[in-house]
Amino acid sequence: MRIGGVLNLLGRLLIILSLMLLSPLPFCYYYGDLMATTFLICSFIGLLCGGCLILLFLPEEDLGYKDGFAIVCFSWLFIALLGALPYYISGFIPSFIDAFFESMSGFTTTGSTILSDIEALPKSLLFWRTMTHWLGGMGIIVLTLAILPLLGIGGMQLFQAEVPGPTKDRLSPRIQDTARILWSVYLLLTGVETVLLMFGGMDFFDALTHSFATLATGGFSNYNASISYFDSTYIQMVIIVFMLLAGANFSLHFMALHGDLKAYWKNEEFRLYIAIVLGATGLIVLANHLWGTYSHLGLNIRDVLFQVVSIITTTGFGTADFDTWSPFCKVLLISIMFVGGCAGSTGGGIKVVRFLLFFKYARLQLHKLIHPRQVETIKLGNTKVPQDVMIAILSFFAIYTGFFLVASLIITALGTDILTGLSAVIATLNNIGPGLNLVGPTQNFGHLPGISKFVLIICMLAGRLELYTLVILLTPGYWKMTRTPRMRFKIKGSATPASQRTYF
Amino acid sequence: MRIGGVLNLLGRLLIILSLMLLSPLPFCYYYGDLMATTFLICSFIGLLCGGCLILLFLPEEDLGYKDGFAIVCFSWLFIALLGALPYYISGFIPSFIDAFFESMSGFTTTGSTILSDIEALPKSLLFWRTMTHWLGGMGIIVLTLAILPLLGIGGMQLFQAEVPGPTKDRLSPRIQDTARILWSVYLLLTGVETVLLMFGGMDFFDALTHSFATLATGGFSNYNASISYFDSTYIQMVIIVFMLLAGANFSLHFMALHGDLKAYWKNEEFRLYIAIVLGATGLIVLANHLWGTYSHLGLNIRDVLFQVVSIITTTGFGTADFDTWSPFCKVLLISIMFVGGCAGSTGGGIKVVRFLLFFKYARLQLHKLIHPRQVETIKLGNTKVPQDVMIAILSFFAIYTGFFLVASLIITALGTDILTGLSAVIATLNNIGPGLNLVGPTQNFGHLPGISKFVLIICMLAGRLELYTLVILLTPGYWKMTRTPRMRFKIKGSATPASQRTYF
Repeated sequence: MRIGGVLNLLGRLLIILSLMLLSPLPFCYYYGDLMATTFLICSFIGLLCGGCLILLFLPEEDLGYKDGFAIVCFSWLFIALLGALPYYISGFIPSFIDAFFESMSGFTTTGSTILSDIEALPKSLLFWRTMTHWLGGMGIIVLTLAILPLLGIGGMQLFQAEVPGPTKDRLSPRIQDTARILWSVYLLLTGVETVLLMFGGMDFFDALTHSFATLATGGFSNYNASISYFDSTYIQMVIIVFMLLAGANFSLHFMALHGDLKAYWKNEEFRLYIAIVLGATGLIVLANHLWGTYSHLGLNIRDVLFQVVSIITTTGFGTADFDTWSPFCKVLLISIMFVGGCAGSTGGGIKVVRFLLFFKYARLQLHKLIHPRQVETIKLGNTKVPQDVMIAILSFFAIYTGFFLVASLIITALGTDILTGLSAVIATLNNIGPGLNLVGPTQNFGHLPGISKFVLIICMLAGRLELYTLVILLTPGYWKMTRTPRMRFKIKGSATPASQRTYF
Repeated sequence: MRIGGVLNLLGRLLIILSLMLLSPLPFCYYYGDLMATTFLICSFIGLLCGGCLILLFLPEEDLGYKDGFAIVCFSWLFIALLGALPYYISGFIPSFIDAFFESMSGFTTTGSTILSDIEALPKSLLFWRTMTHWLGGMGIIVLTLAILPLLGIGGMQLFQAEVPGPTKDRLSPRIQDTARILWSVYLLLTGVETVLLMFGGMDFFDALTHSFATLATGGFSNYNASISYFDSTYIQMVIIVFMLLAGANFSLHFMALHGDLKAYWKNEEFRLYIAIVLGATGLIVLANHLWGTYSHLGLNIRDVLFQVVSIITTTGFGTADFDTWSPFCKVLLISIMFVGGCAGSTGGGIKVVRFLLFFKYARLQLHKLIHPRQVETIKLGNTKVPQDVMIAILSFFAIYTGFFLVASLIITALGTDILTGLSAVIATLNNIGPGLNLVGPTQNFGHLPGISKFVLIICMLAGRLELYTLVILLTPGYWKMTRTPRMRFKIKGSATPASQRTYF
């Protein structure tokens, strides 16, 4: 790995984030909330750190395949650390691990919070909170549609042939092209949602911040009651539609904007995604009706649809306390928590396409048992799925299971009850937000012990980066080939210059 | 499918079971419990049904690959139905679905019970109860080591090359050879355990029945307090050792009895199995110690080791109420509930070898990401695992997940709470026995609604038959090729004789 080049790149990212830290300033002045100094200090710290990295380490042009893992993982980590400073320095979140949790929850578009009174925060800080979502969402789109396919992992790799995307080559300027196209879609959708929400009676600030949180499938709201604060069916409907869009593959939106509206329906993953949403909504509405949880059918449908979409897209906005619904509904909601959005969306979770292939393999095996002599292959759309994909899915589930188990054991070992502990891991590893019981929709993660919060931070990061990116950094094999960084200034007694060494 | 031949074979199985229904008679007379008439009636009904099937349908010599699925599935179903009669006719279990549940729980060696007062049953009926375990265990050994490999499914198929076993050909007399060898091991172990338990102060009846329940990894005890009734460390240790043996591959015992004691240690699955037992025991002992659940370390180790072995082997005997242990311990116990015994044992669950391969694939994928140009394969022992195995594992997990989800939704839809409902499905689908909360170790399944019991009966059957056997019967493709049965007597207006037809 070319660690010097990676650190130089991270320095540049920190500089960009430092500039973004100035974005809440207009709101500081407009609302007069005395937060300007905080943001200026944070921005300065970011510029300082970023500047140091750039000054110390020389850029390297030939950053390759393997450097990608470290770049992705450390950018989220460094950015979340810098993004935590406004909470901490302003004193609104006095514990740093809590501030780090809130920031990581933002940048990974999870939406879990440690705050019990969100409304106590000044407007500009609330703006920064949803800005972390929005920036995280931008990062994810580039990550899943441009970077991860190059690394040979992630959900998009599973149907490389179906959706137009970059092909497997070295990290190259193509990433920038893809990013520019997709960001324009992302920006457009954010703009449209903001306007539509303002039509529903939201002020500009609320409309913008809630659009940020929707498009990133994040889930931070400016109100303790989340979306139920607005009590408007129109607003809920707008948010449902945009959550659904954010949970779908952004390549499809790009194709739709270029006139190919059929792209949605031609995509097998999208069809299953919609089918799951409608199926789960139908079943839960029926259950709520039979149990008498809702007396009004319209309200029932609205709340259930909102909750199902909010959970499957891993947004985590709340309009109803689903923790009070019947056990059947909770089992169904927990199940779709694992499903998550489509590959190439800002949604988290295991991804619809993985389940689609999972069950296609099951059907194939049953078919093989009945007709042992027939040779069958699996198709996604019109494309044959290569054999390699099978091992990618199998190992993804294995790593996911292992991660889930270890995290759950640590959380429960620290004294948290089973339902709270397991659902906290599910909610963070799938980047959803709220869990059940003591971390349910009306609760928060603040009461958990520090170590648990740290473990959940790792879960958010691992889930967001599709596990491999993080897990691969934990294997000793990855670090074996680390190059001595090329520094701008020679350190006394340092080893021979990198250029004179050989690497394997 | 040759349905006539299948029914003829099932008739013969019913005749054998009818004769086994006479086995409790000596205990009826010895304990004078007036149950003799019941068993004679049940045996007569069995002979009548079996006789009818044999008389109506002609045997067919060329039963093949595909008939195997129906034979396996329907034998367990028919036998469990006949085995339920003694409970029902004697009136000790007045509801037939309850009697069927108890019988299926016996023959699938699950060990879940609907009885709240086991000790109220007469001795001869208690004998029959554990006899169903023992016969079920016999069936499973033949099933997993001789029949399923022929059908190309099941855990053993995964390392066909490692353990000596029959090769893939038509259902043949080789099954009888394999069965004879393995049953002699099974009988020997049962005999040795019975003697050892009698040394510990059990009378012959208790020693024999508890040996039945141990070797079959069943878990029915004659006492409400299960094994804790005896309060003897010696007895618990004997049972721990024999549970461990019953949860290991019976081929290994066969090899060990022929002098190859190293066979155990050479087997990678066995090593992992022992490692999980020791690891889980160590962690839970530590947790129980730190939480102060146990003040005495020796008692702590004894109880935890017993419970871990009882659960991983899917026996389900109880010495301690683990539902009162800390959440950490419960999460760990729930995790090993899924693991189950080794392939080729009487244990249920997903099987150690599947997890072994699952995580080997994860490691392989990480290796591939770091060294994309190297070609790597997976080995089990010294044998390369063929590509086909990957799809077998992937589809097994997919079908398992699907089955688990549907069953859990039905159980919770009928008003059962999440922890009870999910753990009831886990406990039956993995053939363990007790679950948590309202179906925990000190509770029973009697209070669940009838439909839930029926679903759990299906779970027990599906889990026992490694899912495929049952699921394949639910696919329409399987029934497409059903042959008109060859009857001994012509039915008026019946179709053209089978010999004049063509099949595809």
